[in-house]
This record gives sequence, C-alpha cells and structure tokens, in this order.
Amino acid sequence: MLATTLLVKKRDGHALTDDEIRFLVDGFCSGEVADYQMSALAMAICVRGMDDRETATLTRAMLESGDRLPRSRSAGQERPRVDKHSTGGLGDKISLVLAPLLSTCDVDVPMISGRGLGITGGTLDKLESIEGLQTQLTTDQSSKVLRDVGAFIVGATERIAPADRNLYALRDVTGTVESVPLITASILSKKLAANLDALVMDVKTGGGAFMQTPAQATELAESLIRVGRQAGLPTTALLTDMDQPLGRTIGNAIEVNEAVEVLGGAGGEVRDLTIELCADLLVQVEVETTLDQARGRLAAMIDGGRAMEQFERMIQAQGGRLECPIDLAPRTEIRAGGGGFLARYDCAVMGGAVVALGGGRRKKGDPIDHRVGIQVHGRIGDQIEKGQPILTLFCHPSQATEYVSVLGAAVEISESPTEHHPLILARLGN
Amino acid sequence: MLATTLLVKKRDGHALTDDEIRFLVDGFCSGEVADYQMSALAMAICVRGMDDRETATLTRAMLESGDRLPRSRSAGQERPRVDKHSTGGLGDKISLVLAPLLSTCDVDVPMISGRGLGITGGTLDKLESIEGLQTQLTTDQSSKVLRDVGAFIVGATERIAPADRNLYALRDVTGTVESVPLITASILSKKLAANLDALVMDVKTGGGAFMQTPAQATELAESLIRVGRQAGLPTTALLTDMDQPLGRTIGNAIEVNEAVEVLGGAGGEVRDLTIELCADLLVQVEVETTLDQARGRLAAMIDGGRAMEQFERMIQAQGGRLECPIDLAPRTEIRAGGGGFLARYDCAVMGGAVVALGGGRRKKGDPIDHRVGIQVHGRIGDQIEKGQPILTLFCHPSQATEYVSVLGAAVEISESPTEHHPLILARLGN
Repeated sequence: MLATTLLVKKRDGHALTDDEIRFLVDGFCSGEVADYQMSALAMAICVRGMDDRETATLTRAMLESGDRLPRSRSAGQERPRVDKHSTGGLGDKISLVLAPLLSTCDVDVPMISGRGLGITGGTLDKLESIEGLQTQLTTDQSSKVLRDVGAFIVGATERIAPADRNLYALRDVTGTVESVPLITASILSKKLAANLDALVMDVKTGGGAFMQTPAQATELAESLIRVGRQAGLPTTALLTDMDQPLGRTIGNAIEVNEAVEVLGGAGGEVRDLTIELCADLLVQVEVETTLDQARGRLAAMIDGGRAMEQFERMIQAQGGRLECPIDLAPRTEIRAGGGGFLARYDCAVMGGAVVALGGGRRKKGDPIDHRVGIQVHGRIGDQIEKGQPILTLFCHPSQATEYVSVLGAAVEISESPTEHHPLILARLGN
Repeated sequence: MLATTLLVKKRDGHALTDDEIRFLVDGFCSGEVADYQMSALAMAICVRGMDDRETATLTRAMLESGDRLPRSRSAGQERPRVDKHSTGGLGDKISLVLAPLLSTCDVDVPMISGRGLGITGGTLDKLESIEGLQTQLTTDQSSKVLRDVGAFIVGATERIAPADRNLYALRDVTGTVESVPLITASILSKKLAANLDALVMDVKTGGGAFMQTPAQATELAESLIRVGRQAGLPTTALLTDMDQPLGRTIGNAIEVNEAVEVLGGAGGEVRDLTIELCADLLVQVEVETTLDQARGRLAAMIDGGRAMEQFERMIQAQGGRLECPIDLAPRTEIRAGGGGFLARYDCAVMGGAVVALGGGRRKKGDPIDHRVGIQVHGRIGDQIEKGQPILTLFCHPSQATEYVSVLGAAVEISESPTEHHPLILARLGN
C-alpha cells in the first residue's frame, strides 16, 4: 500500500477502506507516513469529507495508537463510566459541577480535559486556580482517585490517542481544523480511551462558539452521535446557546467561585444545564428510568450538600486545598451608559480581553493569571437601568481604564425589548 | 500574513491574492512555510483549482525563486530564443531533432530537459547514450554553447526555479501531481527561466500520455497558452497522438539512432511532427511569415544536411563523440501470431518493459542501460501479415523469452480494418 495512492483516492472524492485508514494512521505513528503526507490527507478530508464508516475507523485507529484507561474497580463493584464533552465556549464551567455531581449517583466520571484554546478557557486552567491542585496525574494515580472518589478531572497523558495529538498539532497549522469528520474523530478517540459507557456532548452554537450557526452545530452533533455509536460509544447531544457567556463569570478563579456557588445550591443557567446533561447520562446508562426522575435525584444531591462534599473530596484527592471564594484581582464596575434591553454580547471581544489581561494564553506554555476575569450581570433580553453595572472587571488597576472602554462596547443595549434566548436549543440522539 | 489563514482561504475555494501567493512561495524557499503546509496547499489547489491570474503569479514566484539564463550574444546580434516542451510520451525523441534544426533558422534554442519519469523516457538519458556527452553544464558553459552553436540540451541547474523543484518533490509523494494549474506553473516557471521569446507545447493525449483524453489534454494546453501569455511568454500548443509510440523506436541509444536517421532525411512521424512544431515557433517569432514558408525552409535545412551539421556541432560542444548507429543490445524479433490490422498498443506495458529491462529507472539515481529498447514496425491502422515482425526487442538474451510474450500481448491485431490515427489532433493558440 502506498500513501500517495491513498491521497489521490481521497483527493478525488472516494472513500478509503478500513485497511487504508489504519495503514495511514499506523504509518503516521511509526514515521512511515510523513507529516507532509498527513497534512495533505487532512486537507483532502476537509474538502472531500469522510462517511461515517471512514470516520469511525479513523476514530478507532487513533484510539488504538495509545492506551485505554483500565477499569479501576474490582468485578462486581463496577459502576457505569460516563462523561460530558463540550465544544467550548465563554464561561463554560459545567465540568467542575458535573463531575462531582454525577459521581454521587452511582456512576464514575473519568474526565480528561484540556487547556484554554483561543478565546475559550480550559477546565484544567480553571481548576489550577485551586492551590496545590494537580491535573497531570499518572494513569495509576488517576485510577486511584476514580476508585476512591468516583470522579477526576485531569489532563491527557502522552499515551492517550497520540495519533490524534500529533494530527491535531498538524491541523492547527495547516488550515485543516474545521472538518466535521476530523473533529468527530478527534473528540471521540480521546473519549473512547477513557473506556466510557456513555457520553453526552454539549455542542455550543452562537457568536461565541466554534460552530456559529445551529445548522453547523447540528451537523457536528449528529456526526458525533452516529460515529460514537458506530465506534462503540453511546452518545447523545444537547445543542446549547453560546450567543452569550454561560452563567455569570468568565475567567479562571472566578469561574471556580461560581461553580462552588452552584454546588452550594445557587440557581441559574449553570445549575440548569448541568442537571440536564447529567440527567441525560443517567438515563443513557439506565441508572434512572426517566429524565424527570434523574433531575429530581440530581437536584437533591446538590441541595442536600452531597455534590459539594464530592467536589471537596475530588479536589483533595488531586492535591488541592480549596478556600472559597478564591481571591480575585481588584474590581472595576462597567455601567450601562443608557437604559434599555440587553441585545448582544460580543463574545470574541470579551474572551479576547480575558486572554489579553493574562487569563488565557497567546501561545502554548504562556503563564496564566488565575485572578483576572469578568462578571456578567444579565442575560440577553434582560431590562437594564441607566448606570446599573453590566460587567465587573477583575484585573490589574493599570489595565482597567483601557478595558473598561473595550468591554463597555462589547455589550449592546437596545431601546426596544429583546427576546431571551433559550438555553437548550435541541436535544439530539435520544 | 499567516500561512494557515491562506490555506483556509484556498481550502474554502477562494482565490489567493498575488501578495499571498508570493508570501507562500517565498516562505517555502526560506523555510518559514513548512513542507506540511505546502503539501496541504497543493492538495487544496488540486481540489479547488486556481484561476489564470493566480497560476501566472505562482509561475512567476517560482521563476523568481531562482536565476534566469542570461542573454548570451552581444546587443545587435541577438536572435529570438525559442523552445518546445512535451508533456511526455513513449518514443518522443523530437527534441533531439528539433533543437539543432531550429538553430539553422536564425533562432537560438536553449533547451532545458529532464530525465525519464515513470514509463516515459527522458531526453537527457537518451543523449547520454552518446559517448562523452555532458548534460550538466554550468550557466557559463551552456551560454558559451548557445553563443557558439545556437542550441543546447542540458539539465536544469540547482538555480533554475528551485521553488518548483522542491514543490514538485513534495507533490510527487502527496498525490498532488494531477492539477492543471500546478502542472502549468511547473512547466512555465522553468521555461521562463530560459528567457524565451516563444514556446510551443506538444501536449500528448491517448493511452500512453499523462492526459489520457483529448478533453483533459485540451484543458492543460489552453491553460498553458493563457497563463504563458499572462506571465510574459507567448505560447502555442499542438495536441498530438499518444495512443502509440512516436516514430519507430523506444529506448535510449535506439532513439538517438532514429533521430540521426531523421536528421539524415528519413521520412515519417518524427520528421513531420518536428517540422510542424518548428514551423509554429518560426511564425510565432516572425522569422517566417507563414507556416508553409517555414515548413519549406525547415525541410530544406534537413535535406541539405545543415540540420545534421548543427546536431554534430551541438554534440561536440557538449563533449560528445557521435558514432552512428550506436550499438544496441542483441535483437529478438516478435512476430504477428495472425494477420489483420494493427488495432492497439498497450503503451504502459511497452514503456514498463523498457524500464524493467534497464532502459529506465525504478527509482531516482538508478543506472540506465542505454542499449536496450524496442523497435516498432507499424502504426495503428496498418495491415499486418501473419509471421511478420511487429516488434524487435533489444535486450540481454536471458530476459528475451519473458519479454517476448509480455510484449507480444501488448500489440493488438484485429481481423477487421482499423483506422489510422491522425498525428496532430489540434493546433491551439494561433
């Protein structure tokens, strides 16, 4: 088999066989298929696409380039393994609440998370606002946390789908990121490596999301559901709003503080969406029969304090010492110049501001200032009085003036009433 | 400017600006644009295409990555510079006759040729059948030959369009060879480096050609004509038959022998096509007014012995000692199993046999046995008697038996009459 011949085949719009896909992925890992061949393949896939069978085979080949997380409990004590994956958005701290909450409901949550990418924060960066907390655990260490606590949130080791890691690095610099089959295979290969029994995808759509239109988001969600099932991982998806930040905070420590409030019983979109995603999983693995039963149990686990207890146990098991609320940088209020209705958030500007203030990375390896962030005071559709705070900025005082004006312009207030956006646009795959 | 952004642009089917194309080619030469980015670009161009303006800019950017052949005569003594380029085919020895013949007609012919590629022989390999002949001349050496003789046939130096050389090496292993804009830019960048005043393309079509259908060949020819003119090189094209070998021989020394016969006055397709291609160029640079006048002058130059004289001068100037005919490997006749009409040559099998017998290369750098080859005894449409030689094989006797049967099957004889193929299918760009 010749890589060049297979590139011609995909270039001309034909499907590759399972053997051909495995040959390319295995060759890429062994060095027999060169970077410049793999990037040309990625480009051909971007333009020509892949069918579900090809995408499932690519997923499994990338999975099998590395290790799978072993089962951590002895036979008979096994609990279903579940996880959630979000396509990323502003203020998305769902994982921090979801992992401990789910682990109170007779399921294990081995969550492998990522760092911030572009304007989107990363769960690992947020968690590291907590003093002493370790996110790079060995497989043995994370297995122990899972056995003892029932949940962990850690970074991928070098041995989780290395083919995906290397292909992603290439795609990032060759204009081949935006491809539904390649995104699908990248997400699922890593989730399969955690040996999950069910996955729920939180696919964001809107101005602050990777998939800006509901049509694009639906296409990706449906691909993930079909290919996930074909590759042996039952998958469902919620399509959720990302025209505005999720919840009331954007940053690192500030998002941990909000997550702790939600675990303490606070209401709002973060609680609502977390419960919906968790309920979906509990029904998928048949721990609960109906979504309503699952919702009731989850709400009780929060309100009775069990979820918070689990969060504290998980933090401790990963070496963290939680003292809440975590201190933030000095605050500056940004007030509404006029009254009216919240019409639009410019998510790119808001996310960009957090990165620029040190809360994210411009390039790999940059240090992060966990104390900077933005608090949001309303949702699209809310009525606003003139002079009322619309954003609170937490940053070094020398940068406040500049960003007060940048961020003031990122919130649009309209004189005529605007509509509230539904948090969940669709539920797919049930 | 970011290479990744430009790759996304081409991936999504948009045209690149002149500055963007130059940025990519210059970056590729300086190492700032990596191999894996350039191969992804080539793949995007294969699928999405390039318009003429983009292709002309790519051509000029690749040209300007290297040097141009300086003018070699003093002012006032300048002669028009012309050249022919063929897309390649079996038995194509036209260059060997064309360069010396044209140089008898007040034009200079600085011909930069190539090595054999796949089943197609290379003019340089053929010429090197001549004892002592050098094809790798320095720019100074080739300029002197051009000044003294009026024609040379040499290989490209490292400084001729290095961007094209490097891009071609990548395309060869990434399934991105078959692209009209990339082929156009590759051919024209090298021809522009020779500082030509006119180019005629011999675009082959048929079973033994790169462009198998007349439609594909016409698309390439028209692209070469349009882009050549846009990049400052007047270009015309003949569409010619490659359903069968050109002339009566395939190999290296055997093709030099045939070229010498044609220079000596022998008739046939090689003489006819060479005169047509030369006439086209003489009219293009206005050395002659009409094709018929040009044909007359060219025929006289062959029949009066001037073309042969020029051939001998050129060979000598490049260090060769011509003793004709050059010795060949031992001969074996392959005879018709039955009578009828020549219906089909399997060019892939015939070209493959010459390579397998040592007359071509399986991989770069392989040595060549110049003495092996095949003589062809008729053209499609010719009547054949049972037992008459249809091919004569020149090879090591130990290999003859195997290849007699292989090659016997490569010539199809039909009981019912078949049609002669026209040598020239179309004349484009006049």
